[in-house]
Amino acid sequence: MKNTMRLLFATYVQLLAVAIQAQAIPDDVMQRAATLRDNAMRGSEAYRIVESLTMEVGPRSAGSAGDKAGVLWAVDMLKSLGLKNVRREEVLVPHWDRGTISVRITSPFPQSLVATSLGGSPGTAAEGIEAEVVRVESLAELRALQSDDLQGRIVYIDHIMQRAKDGGGYSKASRIRSCGHVVAAERGAVATIIRSAGTSTHRVAHTGSMLKNFIPADIPGVAISNSDADLLSYQMRSGMPVMLRLHSTARFLPDVVSANVIGEIPGRGDDADEIVLLAAHLDSWDLGTGAIDDGAGVAIVSAAAKLILDLDERPRRTIRVVLYADEEFGGKGAKQYLKDHADQVENHIIGLEADFGSGRVWRIASQVAAGSLDIIDELHRLLAPINLERGDNKATGGADLGPLRKAGMPVIGLTHDGTHYFDYHHTVDDTLDKINRDDLNQSVAAYTTAAFVAANIEQDFGRLPLIDKITTCAAEDDK
Amino acid sequence: MKNTMRLLFATYVQLLAVAIQAQAIPDDVMQRAATLRDNAMRGSEAYRIVESLTMEVGPRSAGSAGDKAGVLWAVDMLKSLGLKNVRREEVLVPHWDRGTISVRITSPFPQSLVATSLGGSPGTAAEGIEAEVVRVESLAELRALQSDDLQGRIVYIDHIMQRAKDGGGYSKASRIRSCGHVVAAERGAVATIIRSAGTSTHRVAHTGSMLKNFIPADIPGVAISNSDADLLSYQMRSGMPVMLRLHSTARFLPDVVSANVIGEIPGRGDDADEIVLLAAHLDSWDLGTGAIDDGAGVAIVSAAAKLILDLDERPRRTIRVVLYADEEFGGKGAKQYLKDHADQVENHIIGLEADFGSGRVWRIASQVAAGSLDIIDELHRLLAPINLERGDNKATGGADLGPLRKAGMPVIGLTHDGTHYFDYHHTVDDTLDKINRDDLNQSVAAYTTAAFVAANIEQDFGRLPLIDKITTCAAEDDK
Repeated sequence: MKNTMRLLFATYVQLLAVAIQAQAIPDDVMQRAATLRDNAMRGSEAYRIVESLTMEVGPRSAGSAGDKAGVLWAVDMLKSLGLKNVRREEVLVPHWDRGTISVRITSPFPQSLVATSLGGSPGTAAEGIEAEVVRVESLAELRALQSDDLQGRIVYIDHIMQRAKDGGGYSKASRIRSCGHVVAAERGAVATIIRSAGTSTHRVAHTGSMLKNFIPADIPGVAISNSDADLLSYQMRSGMPVMLRLHSTARFLPDVVSANVIGEIPGRGDDADEIVLLAAHLDSWDLGTGAIDDGAGVAIVSAAAKLILDLDERPRRTIRVVLYADEEFGGKGAKQYLKDHADQVENHIIGLEADFGSGRVWRIASQVAAGSLDIIDELHRLLAPINLERGDNKATGGADLGPLRKAGMPVIGLTHDGTHYFDYHHTVDDTLDKINRDDLNQSVAAYTTAAFVAANIEQDFGRLPLIDKITTCAAEDDK
Repeated sequence: MKNTMRLLFATYVQLLAVAIQAQAIPDDVMQRAATLRDNAMRGSEAYRIVESLTMEVGPRSAGSAGDKAGVLWAVDMLKSLGLKNVRREEVLVPHWDRGTISVRITSPFPQSLVATSLGGSPGTAAEGIEAEVVRVESLAELRALQSDDLQGRIVYIDHIMQRAKDGGGYSKASRIRSCGHVVAAERGAVATIIRSAGTSTHRVAHTGSMLKNFIPADIPGVAISNSDADLLSYQMRSGMPVMLRLHSTARFLPDVVSANVIGEIPGRGDDADEIVLLAAHLDSWDLGTGAIDDGAGVAIVSAAAKLILDLDERPRRTIRVVLYADEEFGGKGAKQYLKDHADQVENHIIGLEADFGSGRVWRIASQVAAGSLDIIDELHRLLAPINLERGDNKATGGADLGPLRKAGMPVIGLTHDGTHYFDYHHTVDDTLDKINRDDLNQSVAAYTTAAFVAANIEQDFGRLPLIDKITTCAAEDDK
């Protein structure tokens, strides 16, 4: 009760502060948004949604039976919430099968390692690979080696990902995952083993795509758990040659038709053709049940839409929920969406993507036209009572918003607390029990408030410059 | 420095307090013990020992190649420390092979579960088992069911183990693991699935022996991780019949000769035939590298002996380090030791076993003759400066001390902080990175001090009453 009073008072002070300035967000929108925010903090459909998705559908990697089940589930779920124009839009997705894997140190001290194939890895020949290991700590160190050092060897990239609230350590770690094998193969290596691109101290290996721009990998790529990386590094420190045996049956199967699943709250008038995009992805990796990645996002954006749908009045603009196919394997869903809606690109006035778990949202960042930053400032005042800081205007929005952002769509980035996200992400440990209900409620409140405001003000967020740069595995693109 | 001063002062006050009473531990022993304790706090060989064992030998379940390698390693290790009479004493141990396992819910919502066979489980026929699941939460609930309820069914025992500093929750959980299948098989069930007898919130399943008194199990026993138990329980709550498919290739292979590995610090005079026993076990489960269970114990007792060996004077009594074979699979090592040393039973004046990880020792308990409790009181005063509480006189000492204790040997129980022990114990997660060096040093200090005192005083600990009770799976033995 005390907290509610404090919240009300804080809101009142902010409204007062806003009232004496020029306002991008009118008073009535501000007031209704504050009420909506406080309602959302008290709970929503989000937990029930992610519970149902993880417990009843489970893993849903692109092209799998679970992916198909997930699409059916999502159509039902959005319809049951009462969203309009619920539909599936077909997407041809890759279908990679992990198969089985075994990784064993055969010398100097034989031990089996907990390992997993990286997404898109080819398997080995039936007899497997046995080779000496060469250890490096970075792509730069790998690039400095010559073919003489690496020919016929297994490259082991022992980079320890740094834990950070904003998930910042992942950028370097995932760059190694998607480019290490390219650099290694160029120099004649026969496989790459990486220390997991994650912060788990448990003995679970971390998967994730090893493909860069859909280029098939030449050599197998494998991740070992942090504990197993400690073991391999210990043996390397012995100074004796370390031999590793690797066998994997990973392979690609034919592409499969999956779908982006879409539902809407149609806008109420002249602005109904303008779209506020709420994005998450429906696919997951195959190891866990896809709770934090990205069942949480599916739940957050769907529950946010439901809260806005339940208001007395429809928003001015249309709110469109898009649950994308195939975020994990290269983003075929997002690319297909851009093709399918090429004539609507300019109508997407802002995008918000939930794809960083269910930790508390602690920051609102953006990438909008400079003239629209006052909206973000005012939105921040609305969100400060639920403990959001003000971020910069360099947000990228998320992977699924990438194609639209590069085509000019502005984005709002609501940053979840990612301190523990990479303890679970892309591992068997991505399960429902990692989601805290209070944190999830707060996340829903942040998205609901931002989406409501964006859909109800007159002003827009401008447009962003067009981008056609594609990052490669060349040294100049290393971060 | 401040801490050292505080420690010195506290010790001084205690010495003073002791000096004005009748003393079981003479002044000079008290003083040397305090110095030894403080030295041990500054470090020992313990970490290096457990690092070498886990990184170079790794898993060493009874009868496996790792078990054999562990015995060779242990002989070398004790010799390298300079212990005397280092030897192996042969023990015939069971050799069970985990094989492969798959557990899948086939209805109502198909999903694969992270599972592991319980030690000693038979496998399934090649076609596997598919049956409806009956869920209970306790042995009492299972005992109340009739054959009509269970015939041809899979029993799922969904008991959530409680976390506790003294590990108290394990007693009930492990009772379910070793007796659930017996009660279920009597009523016609075809398999048992248990929620892991551990506190890990990660998706790792917890193994451990399902045998009770070496009686072979009639039906397969499987543990699923806590996350997977949540999933199975969710599906049971749907009210629809839940079908499970189970396939396992677990089996027993022929028994194998392993060994207890022993080393000594021979006593210096007339009391040299009296033995202070320092116990740990060399075998481990096959899933992890046996770091906390019981690499830590091996390291603690070996490092403690080394610290005492390095003193100017040998102890009055002999200190014998025994690294037992096969603690995990029923304790053949401890039983064989009792047979091999039947004529020495009375010479074992006290036993200390380290088999509860490497958390800080927070309590000294005992089971000694009432007339010898003054020694434990005085020992507690020596250990209070490193934060030990005084426990009761009901300690059991540990599994490997069991046969000797039942034959009358008193025990001292140094209780480690077990709050997180069952997050790792018996899982793939039992690896070196779970060991904290400072906690390990403190543990070594506690064992070193206690062993030094026991080996250097004149008084003994009396004898305990003989016990020949064998617990069974009957209801009256449920805890």
